[in-house]
Parts: sequence; C-alpha cells; structure tokens
Amino acid sequence: MAELADLASLEMLASWDQQVMMPVEGAVARAQQLGVLARITHERATAAEIGDWLEEIAAALRAGEQLEEIDRDIVRIARRDWERARRVPEELAAELAQASAAGQESWRVAREHDDFAAFLPALARNVELARAYGQCVAEDGESAYEALLGDYDYGLRTAQLRRVFGALGEALAPLAAEASVRSPRRTLEVPVAAQRVAVTSTLTRLGVQPSSWRVDVSAHPFTAWIGRGDSRVTTRYSDGQVESLLSSLHEYGHALYERQIDPALARTNLGQGTSMSIHESQSKLWENHVARSPAFAEVLAAELGAGGFEVSAAELHAALVGVEASPVRVSADPLTYPLHIVVRFELELALIEGELPVAELPSAWREAMGRLLGVDVPSDALGCLQDVHWGAGSFGYFPSYALGCLIAAQLWEALEAELGSREEDLRRGEVGAIQRWLGEHVHRYGRRLDTMALLERASGRPLEIEPFLRYVAPLAGR
Amino acid sequence: MAELADLASLEMLASWDQQVMMPVEGAVARAQQLGVLARITHERATAAEIGDWLEEIAAALRAGEQLEEIDRDIVRIARRDWERARRVPEELAAELAQASAAGQESWRVAREHDDFAAFLPALARNVELARAYGQCVAEDGESAYEALLGDYDYGLRTAQLRRVFGALGEALAPLAAEASVRSPRRTLEVPVAAQRVAVTSTLTRLGVQPSSWRVDVSAHPFTAWIGRGDSRVTTRYSDGQVESLLSSLHEYGHALYERQIDPALARTNLGQGTSMSIHESQSKLWENHVARSPAFAEVLAAELGAGGFEVSAAELHAALVGVEASPVRVSADPLTYPLHIVVRFELELALIEGELPVAELPSAWREAMGRLLGVDVPSDALGCLQDVHWGAGSFGYFPSYALGCLIAAQLWEALEAELGSREEDLRRGEVGAIQRWLGEHVHRYGRRLDTMALLERASGRPLEIEPFLRYVAPLAGR
Repeated sequence: MAELADLASLEMLASWDQQVMMPVEGAVARAQQLGVLARITHERATAAEIGDWLEEIAAALRAGEQLEEIDRDIVRIARRDWERARRVPEELAAELAQASAAGQESWRVAREHDDFAAFLPALARNVELARAYGQCVAEDGESAYEALLGDYDYGLRTAQLRRVFGALGEALAPLAAEASVRSPRRTLEVPVAAQRVAVTSTLTRLGVQPSSWRVDVSAHPFTAWIGRGDSRVTTRYSDGQVESLLSSLHEYGHALYERQIDPALARTNLGQGTSMSIHESQSKLWENHVARSPAFAEVLAAELGAGGFEVSAAELHAALVGVEASPVRVSADPLTYPLHIVVRFELELALIEGELPVAELPSAWREAMGRLLGVDVPSDALGCLQDVHWGAGSFGYFPSYALGCLIAAQLWEALEAELGSREEDLRRGEVGAIQRWLGEHVHRYGRRLDTMALLERASGRPLEIEPFLRYVAPLAGR
Repeated sequence: MAELADLASLEMLASWDQQVMMPVEGAVARAQQLGVLARITHERATAAEIGDWLEEIAAALRAGEQLEEIDRDIVRIARRDWERARRVPEELAAELAQASAAGQESWRVAREHDDFAAFLPALARNVELARAYGQCVAEDGESAYEALLGDYDYGLRTAQLRRVFGALGEALAPLAAEASVRSPRRTLEVPVAAQRVAVTSTLTRLGVQPSSWRVDVSAHPFTAWIGRGDSRVTTRYSDGQVESLLSSLHEYGHALYERQIDPALARTNLGQGTSMSIHESQSKLWENHVARSPAFAEVLAAELGAGGFEVSAAELHAALVGVEASPVRVSADPLTYPLHIVVRFELELALIEGELPVAELPSAWREAMGRLLGVDVPSDALGCLQDVHWGAGSFGYFPSYALGCLIAAQLWEALEAELGSREEDLRRGEVGAIQRWLGEHVHRYGRRLDTMALLERASGRPLEIEPFLRYVAPLAGR
C-alpha cells in the first residue's frame, strides 16, 4: 500500500513538472516515463499476492482475530480496489489506453476545424469501450454507467443523479434567466501585477508558506499533493480578468483537503481524498463560499489595492458573481455552471445506455442547451466538442463538477449552523475556524467514508439541492 | 532496458525537484518515494528473467544467429550489469544502504564538532562493508578496490592509477609551489546581478534554449538529464565570486555529453555517459579549457560588462586561474585540484586494502597534504572530515575527479591537433566545432566504450599526464 501511494506521488510529481517546469521538447520522454510508472503501478495494484494477503486476513478474521478500526477500512478498500482492477482484462485496458490517446488527438483536430464528423469514429469507439469497461467492472445490480461513475465516485446511483440533476435543472433554469438581468456579468480590468500581489498575499493569509507549499503558473490551474508537507497549487494570470483570484482559492481548497487527512492514513490506501465530488466540493467551498462572498470581497479588494488597483468591495464582488448564460462551461458563472453539467450528464448517460446514437450528439446538445440554459450553440466547437473528456474516454466524470457545487453549499450551511455566520470572520480574512471544521468533519477521513456517507456524517442530511439554490438565490434577487 | 532507463530518469527528476523546487517539509515523503523507486529499480535490474533472456540470446548465437552491432553491445553490457548486481546478497545491499545513511549523519555531526573520534565507528563500518562489497562484486583477478572503482569507472586498474597518480603528484607538487607565486589567487568583486547576466547570455551562446533546457539555482550546482530534449543545469551565485561562471560551464559540459549520445541508444542500457571520469572530463573540458582560457575570458568579460560590471579580459582570466594551495578540495584552483584527489586515492586505497588503520586516518591525511600540497591542515573538519564521500560509503569515487582533469586535457590536445588552435573561435565565442568534435569522438558512443577504450579511440593514445601538465605549465611560468 505504501509503495502504491509513493508511486502515485511520483506520478503526480512527474505530471506537475510536465505542466509547470518541463522544457517542451521533453514531452516525448515524459510520456514514456509516465507510461512506465502507470504500467508498474497497474502491475502491482493487480498482483495476485494482494489476493493471497486478503485471503490470509479473511481466514484470520474467521478464526476470531480482530483488526483495529483503521486496518478494517484498509482491508475493505484494498479488496474493493483490487477486485475492481482485476475485473478488467489486460487487452481491454490496453485498448482503452490506446483509444484514449487516439481519441484526444482526434478531438483536438476536430475541434480546431469545427468538424464533428471527423470526431465521430473515435467517439463511437470510446463509447463502446467505456460501456464494455463498465460492464466488466460493474458489481451485482450495477449498470455500466454506475460502474463508470465508480472510478471517480464510488457508490453513486444513476437514479439518484437523475432525480437530483432533474430537480436542479428545473429550479436553476428560471433562476438563471432572472439572475442574468439582476446580476449581469461585468468585467473588471485588473492588471496582472495587482492580481499577483493579491493572490500571493491572500494565499499567505490562508497559511500558504514556502516551507510546505509552492504556488506556480501553468496553462490550466491545478493542484498536486506530492507528499506530506509538499502541496503545490498553480494559477494563471491574464489582464482584465479576476480568474486568478477564484482559481487560486479553488486550488487551495483541493490542497487543504489532502493536507488535513489524518496523518495515520499516510501511505495507506486511505490517505487521499475519497472522491472527485468531495474533492470538488472542497475547491468549490473556497471558491464559491469564501472567494465569492461579499465579506471576503473586502479582503480581496484591499489586497488588490495593495497591488496598486483600487476597487470597492462591492464592485469586486459584483464582478466575481455576475451571471450570464453562455455556451461554454469553463468560463461559466457560479449559477449556470451546474446546468452545463446537467446537460453533459443527460447526454453521456444516454450515450452509454445506447439511447442516444452517437451521430445525434450535436443536435441533442443544442436541444439540451436551449432547454436548460436558453442559449443557442453557435458551433460544435463551442458545443459538444468543447470538452476533452469524452475524447479521452472519460464518461461518468462530469457529474462530480455539479455535485461539488451542491455538496459545498450543503457543507457550508452545516458549518455555519454549527459555528454561526462566517461573515464577520471573512470580513477580517479569518479562516482558521473554517479550516478546522473542514478538517474535523470532512478531511480527516480520507477514503474511510465514501461520498454520500461522508456528506451525511458531516451535514447530518442526505444530498440536497436546496442549500445550493439558497446560495444562488440572491443573484436572482430572491 | 527501456523501463530501467525510464526509472532512472524518474529518479533523476525526483532528485532534481528535491534540490531545486521542493518545499523543505516535503523531505521525508521524498525520501520514501526515492526509496520505493530504488527498490523497484533494483528488483527489476536483478530479475531472474533477465538471466533467462541472456541465456536465450546466447543459445541463439551459438546456433549461428547474428546480432547487429548495437545489439551486441546492449547484450554485453546487460550481462555485465546483471551479473554485478546479482553478486551482491540482499542483506549486504540493505546493510550498505543503512550504513550509508547512518554514516552521513555521523559525518555531519562529527564535522560540525571537528570530532574525528565520533566519526570513527561509522567510518570503520563503512570501510569494512565496502571491502566486503568489493569482494562480492570483484571479477576474476580483480581486487576489492578495483571492484569498487568499477561502480563508477568500469575496468580501471589500481596499478595504473598508482602509476599515473604517483607521477602526477611528483610533477605537480613543485609546479604548484611556483604557480602560487607566479599566478597568485586574486578575488574579483563581481555583483550577483552581473553574474546572472553573464551566465545566462554565455549559456545561450552555447545553445542553451528554454525549449529543451532549464537553468536554475541550487545549493550545490549539478546537472540532471531527465530525457531527450530535457537537460537541466543549476548554478549558485554569491557576491564577489566568479564561481557561477565556472560552475555553469562545468555543468553545461555534463549536460552536453548526455545530449549528444547517439539517439539510437536512447532507452537502452547504452544511452548514458559511460563513466564518472569521462563525465568529469566533459565538465572539466568546458570549465578548464573553455571558461579558463585567455581567449574565452574576452567573451566572459564582455558579458559581465553587459551586466554592468567592467573588467578587462586579462584581469578576469587571472581571477579564474589564480593558484593557491589550500587544505580544502572544493574551492581548489585548477592546478592543485588533482593533488587533493591524489591524497584521497592513496588513503582510500590503503583503507580498503587494510594497510591504513582507520584510526590513523587524520595523521596520514596531514602527512599527505604536507607532502603533496605543502599545506598544514588546521583541523580534521578542514582535513579528513571535509568530504561526505567516505561517510556515505563511497570508496573508489574520488579518482574520477582527477582523471576528469587529465582526460579533458588529453582530449583538448587531440581536438586542437585535428581542428587547429581554438583560440580565434573562442575569442568570438564560437564553440560549434568543439561541440561537434566532442559529439563525434566522445559523446555519441554512450556506454558502448569504457573509459580507457574511449579515450584511446578519441585521442589515439592511452591515458597520459603530460597534456594536463602542459595545460597548467603557464601558471608556473614555464
């Protein structure tokens, strides 16, 4: 387990380096190095001896031996991981890897030329392989799509997602229309130099110290946790945008989650974030409920002022939350963002379940975007070709983005219910109580609890959409 | 072979990151990650299946099959590496690793307190284990010390080193005394900012482009070759020193060697520098014969001028070559440097061969330093405790430093004999012909030729000390 954890860390280091430090001409060699790491990791994660150890432990337990609580979870998750990995035939795993690489390249070219037909064969193949993979991995009673979800979020049920995302779409669509009038999107021309000052001093305020953190720039912001005491976030800067402020808080949320996992779980199979949606909830909590709060806008405005850019807290806040329905997911505002995910969930589920022929994806995309977001899709490049995920063979990944928004809102309400309103603290840039509450109720568990069990333990309730709707209601003037 | 090459690249990346980028608190996790990499590498390098493959190939050759020239070398070196690695019992390998870690810590504390007695037990254990290791690894007729040498420089013979280093000591000692009068050491107060400009523009002139190189700062300058198209050198800056100029050219020489290995050898066991001494000859060639030449001093002086520091080429050259015998190796001048190595060679050979009791090392050190360098050793901290090598269990490593100086001088004479004097080119900062000659005669072979065979092929002669003596003679006014 320790070896697998260390191999995962090395993989993360090599990827971080590739995106942040590596000279471009090192790319071919790096792909080979990452390939070797993946192969060795797969080999060890599926080794027959793991099965022998699990059998030995099971026999000892049957004979009356006891395990400590943490060890019980280690064994439970080890069995789950090992069995899931072993269910995939070698040939299928190789086909998936090959189709993912080819699909990404096909997607890249097709998007560049706005040519869905050119992408169609690769997409059809990815759908077919994903379905086959899901069927292999599925446990008793699980559908192929549920098995795919399980790679990112173990235990999610399609029926629950249909219900939650269906209700979310119905409730959010009218709110979005109102909010785009009441809280329209505005741009703020913030020079990069001021953004840099604000990002650095804000992160420092949250505890980002050079002794155990790095903050760098990369084309796409991301977070790497290389090991205990080594957290690395990236952001990006462009003139006239405030994205750097939001993205640095977003990535901070991911990093803080991994940092506050119980040290006793380090180098075990439990010592990492439990799922994509809980991870995304942690980044969204800092992005939506801290960085986009009116109170914290005072801190951010002061930091921008120290960087030479004068702006009022109210103006800054308005720029951070302004709503405008658009065809593009990655630049979407906090209110319409989950609607983009509902579109993708509906469509990828229909693709995997065979209800939507792959060739009809562009028209189905236009229909769903019109119905849920009220926008016209100007081209496939800005429509169903905008994301790499399906080209890379990732199905079942999108839901975690919206679940992250919902879970963040639900956790934030639970946190404020226990600690009282955070408004005064946030106005002063005080986040210690928030960090501690998250550490205690969410982070420390690592993989010991799956998504829904963790959410219920932390918030006292099953997944609900109402906290998120209450969070965005003010944008629509409700 | 490709897998082992990629694992070595990942190890280099993780070490580079540790020294250049890693937050300090990541050190414990990094040590664990490097430990896992080393364990997996060892496991695969000594796998029984490699022996099966070698046997299969041997059988096919006996049956009349043929191998291409490169494949013959791959098989020859694979057998050598595999057999050497397999000769070390697991327990001894574990003891060596443990004693190396403990020895470095003991050395660190002993040096800090100038307390040789505190280091004695760890040193005695390292000598004993190194001897045992050498005896395990030794091939027919090899001594334990020769087997130790073989980890860094395969095929070196103790008798040859005794002869060469003996003659070198006798010839250099009187030259050093004269040179310290004729070409005394001078310091030049160069501000860091000017050094940075000069280092950057000089490296750019040599072909260091961001698309396939990185230049960073680290506590100790070093080079990492992470893969094709990904070379990374580091340097360090301190006010009033010109070390950054020398060290950046030195590291450039290491990097260029790896970059110019025949691409056909990439990801085989031949696709790396052949030995420590050839590697060191490549760094010393750029340090001694380019950076320290009067002609190239004109280029460096101009670059420093562009950085705001005015100095004449003659003054700069004098500062780069000034001679002063001192007790400390790492800051030694180009003439006395090899004498420090002769001292270490004599003493480590005597330790391994059991002729020098470990407890007598400090007095033997003082005697040798007086005899060869004419200096008094003020303390053991500045004497036999100054280097980490023996504390880390590395015996047989030191000779490559002096061999590097000798081989660099011998290659340089061969290069100028073929291309004519480089003076005019160096004055204009032109190094293309030097790069090409080294690529053609030294670099491209990778591990296909061992140290002495490569030297003879490239220079037409066996190892000699005269080229180096001719290189330093002008410093003594001869």
